Amino acid sequence: MQFDLDRRRPGQSRITTPRKETDTCKISSGVSEGLTTGTPIHVFVPNTDQRGFDYNEMSVAYRPSHADATYDMKYGVRSVQGGGRSSARETVGRVAAGAVAKKILKLYAGTEVLAYVSQVHKVVLPEGVVDHDSFSLDQIESNIVRCPDPEYAEKMIAAIDAVRVKGDSVGGVVTCIVRNAPRGLGSPVFDKLEAELAKAAMSLPATKGFEFGSGFAGTFLSGSEHNDEFYTNEHGKIRTRTNRSGGIQGGISNGEIINLRIAFKPTSTIGRKQHTVTRDKKETELIARGRHDPCVVPRAVPMVEAMVALVLMDQLMAQYSQSYLFPINSDLQEPLAIPRLEAAKASV
Amino acid sequence: MQFDLDRRRPGQSRITTPRKETDTCKISSGVSEGLTTGTPIHVFVPNTDQRGFDYNEMSVAYRPSHADATYDMKYGVRSVQGGGRSSARETVGRVAAGAVAKKILKLYAGTEVLAYVSQVHKVVLPEGVVDHDSFSLDQIESNIVRCPDPEYAEKMIAAIDAVRVKGDSVGGVVTCIVRNAPRGLGSPVFDKLEAELAKAAMSLPATKGFEFGSGFAGTFLSGSEHNDEFYTNEHGKIRTRTNRSGGIQGGISNGEIINLRIAFKPTSTIGRKQHTVTRDKKETELIARGRHDPCVVPRAVPMVEAMVALVLMDQLMAQYSQSYLFPINSDLQEPLAIPRLEAAKASV
Amino acid sequence: MQFDLDRRRPGQSRITTPRKETDTCKISSGVSEGLTTGTPIHVFVPNTDQRGFDYNEMSVAYRPSHADATYDMKYGVRSVQGGGRSSARETVGRVAAGAVAKKILKLYAGTEVLAYVSQVHKVVLPEGVVDHDSFSLDQIESNIVRCPDPEYAEKMIAAIDAVRVKGDSVGGVVTCIVRNAPRGLGSPVFDKLEAELAKAAMSLPATKGFEFGSGFAGTFLSGSEHNDEFYTNEHGKIRTRTNRSGGIQGGISNGEIINLRIAFKPTSTIGRKQHTVTRDKKETELIARGRHDPCVVPRAVPMVEAMVALVLMDQLMAQYSQSYLFPINSDLQEPLAIPRLEAAKASV
Amino acid sequence: MQFDLDRRRPGQSRITTPRKETDTCKISSGVSEGLTTGTPIHVFVPNTDQRGFDYNEMSVAYRPSHADATYDMKYGVRSVQGGGRSSARETVGRVAAGAVAKKILKLYAGTEVLAYVSQVHKVVLPEGVVDHDSFSLDQIESNIVRCPDPEYAEKMIAAIDAVRVKGDSVGGVVTCIVRNAPRGLGSPVFDKLEAELAKAAMSLPATKGFEFGSGFAGTFLSGSEHNDEFYTNEHGKIRTRTNRSGGIQGGISNGEIINLRIAFKPTSTIGRKQHTVTRDKKETELIARGRHDPCVVPRAVPMVEAMVALVLMDQLMAQYSQSYLFPINSDLQEPLAIPRLEAAKASV
Repeated sequence: MQFDLDRRRPGQSRITTPRKETDTCKISSGVSEGLTTGTPIHVFVPNTDQRGFDYNEMSVAYRPSHADATYDMKYGVRSVQGGGRSSARETVGRVAAGAVAKKILKLYAGTEVLAYVSQVHKVVLPEGVVDHDSFSLDQIESNIVRCPDPEYAEKMIAAIDAVRVKGDSVGGVVTCIVRNAPRGLGSPVFDKLEAELAKAAMSLPATKGFEFGSGFAGTFLSGSEHNDEFYTNEHGKIRTRTNRSGGIQGGISNGEIINLRIAFKPTSTIGRKQHTVTRDKKETELIARGRHDPCVVPRAVPMVEAMVALVLMDQLMAQYSQSYLFPINSDLQEPLAIPRLEAAKASV
Repeated sequence: MQFDLDRRRPGQSRITTPRKETDTCKISSGVSEGLTTGTPIHVFVPNTDQRGFDYNEMSVAYRPSHADATYDMKYGVRSVQGGGRSSARETVGRVAAGAVAKKILKLYAGTEVLAYVSQVHKVVLPEGVVDHDSFSLDQIESNIVRCPDPEYAEKMIAAIDAVRVKGDSVGGVVTCIVRNAPRGLGSPVFDKLEAELAKAAMSLPATKGFEFGSGFAGTFLSGSEHNDEFYTNEHGKIRTRTNRSGGIQGGISNGEIINLRIAFKPTSTIGRKQHTVTRDKKETELIARGRHDPCVVPRAVPMVEAMVALVLMDQLMAQYSQSYLFPINSDLQEPLAIPRLEAAKASV
Repeated sequence: MQFDLDRRRPGQSRITTPRKETDTCKISSGVSEGLTTGTPIHVFVPNTDQRGFDYNEMSVAYRPSHADATYDMKYGVRSVQGGGRSSARETVGRVAAGAVAKKILKLYAGTEVLAYVSQVHKVVLPEGVVDHDSFSLDQIESNIVRCPDPEYAEKMIAAIDAVRVKGDSVGGVVTCIVRNAPRGLGSPVFDKLEAELAKAAMSLPATKGFEFGSGFAGTFLSGSEHNDEFYTNEHGKIRTRTNRSGGIQGGISNGEIINLRIAFKPTSTIGRKQHTVTRDKKETELIARGRHDPCVVPRAVPMVEAMVALVLMDQLMAQYSQSYLFPINSDLQEPLAIPRLEAAKASV
Repeated sequence: MQFDLDRRRPGQSRITTPRKETDTCKISSGVSEGLTTGTPIHVFVPNTDQRGFDYNEMSVAYRPSHADATYDMKYGVRSVQGGGRSSARETVGRVAAGAVAKKILKLYAGTEVLAYVSQVHKVVLPEGVVDHDSFSLDQIESNIVRCPDPEYAEKMIAAIDAVRVKGDSVGGVVTCIVRNAPRGLGSPVFDKLEAELAKAAMSLPATKGFEFGSGFAGTFLSGSEHNDEFYTNEHGKIRTRTNRSGGIQGGISNGEIINLRIAFKPTSTIGRKQHTVTRDKKETELIARGRHDPCVVPRAVPMVEAMVALVLMDQLMAQYSQSYLFPINSDLQEPLAIPRLEAAKASV
């Protein structure tokens, strides 16, 4: 869990916010002698570098494209320090919970959830440079921008440095893949797997778009070009030759690699003068003084992994209770054998 | 309600499936003398053009990129006729419910939800051709492809006709806007308005992507280019000069126009030979014989409107109970006056 | 399913309402060739003996202790015919769904849910007359009041007949037991098994009270008298010697017989003159003319069974996904082996 | 909030557990300058008198009628110290949240939720001794057992003292009433107000039964004796002359006093020798050494009030969004005027 929190925390490198939050987590319930007990797990992550005074000016002037104004429109009152719940600090909880979900998915079915940065501003990693079948967490973590290709990583870092020194910001895209996803996850109608993943991803701060499989680009293909033909592989497993479906067909996972792309806008809090209004509707100018990220995508990588893992975990539990209580056709459904306690314990 | 069901139904024009389903709705509970009674509204829409025999071959062979295989992987059993719940027929209920939601939103706050086709295959309607402040439902309905611009509508129809005669299919993009959306809808963290809209949209069949405001294109801008500056208008209302936020900031609506784009893949059931496997894992070839849409986007327009209206209605109810029970600052929150019964009755 | 619907339907005997509703159920989705398909099961039970005119007078005068007035207080409008959702007709759906749940529970773990009438007006079946370990459904169904003891059944029938001829009504108590309930069902805090059962039972029309195990009578015992001591039986199973816990400890089932008692008030719609007010607040007198039950408890028996079975089914599914995905200690938890498809199919 | 926490905390008098937990609450989010901000309110109540060693013996032997065994049956693992979630300590959160709900209900509609002890072991407060229209919180708090009648309070205290010195325990009944409950709260079918209240009450530790209005005793009346006749009072309000309905008809509140009775069993952890088994199924004897309540009902009073207030608050919010967004008939529905901010602020 601490590993993922460190990937999320501010101040981890020069291309993130210089706030120095150590984000050390303390678990105060729900785990006993290395095992979860069924009790809710309480994780406490105190904020060790809070500077309220940075926010004084912002308490009256609304930051453009930030949640300042809409919180007032909704509640008629808001917390100013650190943005309250609009601070990306709220994602600490997501990352902590996601770490548990990732562990269970790995133990249960060898499922791996991996995200990386595939675009920063105008630096776009071309499709195919990263091999989705084989790239590793180590490759992602080998540089501060979290792009598994070293060459593009350098270009991305340069792009962030360029705006950082000017007090400006840039956005980008995070790609996430899931290897060895169990088959049969998701629902046919309202709770399709892609719908759950879209909600989870779009609930992260600063997101502007979501696509999976062929995505928006797939609209330029014809049906005969787009369809993924089936075949039976040497182990008697039904597979598809291509994967424009992105591992999901009819709202349900088919066992191929799930792949997603999520657009993040440039950080709205910037150190440049902008026109805005105050809480009492007077026009004013604002230069934000907080210590904010010039680009959120490197820190968004563990957040995306966490949200995807949490959706899969929920769906696995649902699938387990709905379909594996009474499997009708075990050959097609492939319910996984119950893993041994020893295996689980050994890995703790 | 019948108006929207007619916009959705098959057989409405030559560019949709030739199935002749009249989709006449019959309300059997929940409405009495023109008023809803609080009881669930039961709407019955019988299928009047069912031809099970069209599906015989498909009962053994899985259609590529369709839900056939994944339903078997999930349940170990499936209904073959008409695809069961994977048939777009399930959207009848969404459109019927959406019609009620649209009516209430209109009465309550003059809120309008309008969708149109902005891309078919390689025919892309350029941004700005349709004026989001002023285009009307009549313009959308003035042609069979549901694009408010007559010139591009013709090109789109031609693009569909081109694949239709070859038994192939194409996809496209539906754009949806919301005018006069109430402010303050949505939640700060997991249930952000964009997250709810993304889930609702991505729960529709054949969707591959979702974006709002600046979307994926916004990742190419810097923060200083992307931010929407605030000003106070002549009525003392806080507004933004640009709308790259797409009407939502920090998960909450700000009163500007909400705009969304949703990608639909080309229909997977096509009348061309494809390789696939049967339920017992034998390789085979399949030419689908059902009567399917060469392009789903014209019929998807009322579905998208319905899902967006249902999300807004849910959020309006939540906002009403959470924030308007005790408004803290009515000037910022702008709770709407309770509309008169007479007004509501008059409009029935 | 039809068996249980017949136990619930009006007009089944002289001690129920004389309305002649056949309650024949027609399943139009979700079942194919004797197996559920995962699709929602749609059961249609048309009302074949509707007489709106019986309700004319009641459309203006509120029936005392009925939902007439409160529906108007809530919605400002209501359906009059048959009482809308306040009619016990709404329990048809509960009984139909419960029939499916009972079947799965039986197949999965040999779990049996049985209810019977243990009190009608002042006729109280003494504890112990019915042996909870061995009485059968046949015994319950051997008489029209659904009391497994023939002697008390006769007294109860006489008590109902006595008020029936006077146009009055009486209430009573339904007792429900669950044999072979799986262990481990329920949750430690808000969703305790007894809390879920209480909600389910108290959601039935005309209920006034709920108790389980020692119930209200248990408050007269001391802790040393009340506690159920543990022992290990000859099969190595942990059991309790007494069962004042009613099969539930700390919100979770312990494998002993679950037992509940539910109080039903006398039917409020009676054929005797009562003082009341009209919708426009004028005082008036009312003699209800509909055909109503002199005592609801015989027909409530299948309703109670259904609600209890539905709660157990939900909890079994939850338990399956929460605890049996990774059993920690199979000896204590006793997850049941996945039953064979053949067994399930054979029993259809 | 602290007032109610003090009413719940252990060690408040000689008839409760001697554990000395001060239960001082610290609010770390969600409240700013005396107003809630819409952010979840985080209340931290550290346990200041934890003695793990008291629980050593119990870690192997299951306490009779306690959650020890069932937690193991469910999870295969459990926390031993303080019983984990089976400790009544978990009710701290309920009482804290209930304090906020009670405040809003009071401000919104003058609604008062008051509970008191109406039975301890064999000491039963006769109906009518306490006048539900007029008794006050001060009367409840005037003695350590929380019975508003001083004479019966003394008898109850004596009954508890009698078992306390013997290491035994007793149970009892808590009665709860709601004055000035808003009309129209609750739902017609599954979520009837009495169903929600029953679930909330029965989710409290040690409960065995729930009844409202005439309750189990009402089963001994005929319909003509039981029904509550309507009349219109001098303010043009529809009222009932009697209140055997307990303020709820057809699942919906009618504005009369809501009254409930909840049975609590004798505390299961007692200081007397009992037969039981250990985790590895060996038979053993156990004398619990922890410091436990000889009778839980005095401390259960604020818990019951809290759960009832939380249910009403949820229902008020639901009613607000479902029925008051568009009131159909304001005269029947009586939506309350939006209270002024000043009034709310003044009372903080």
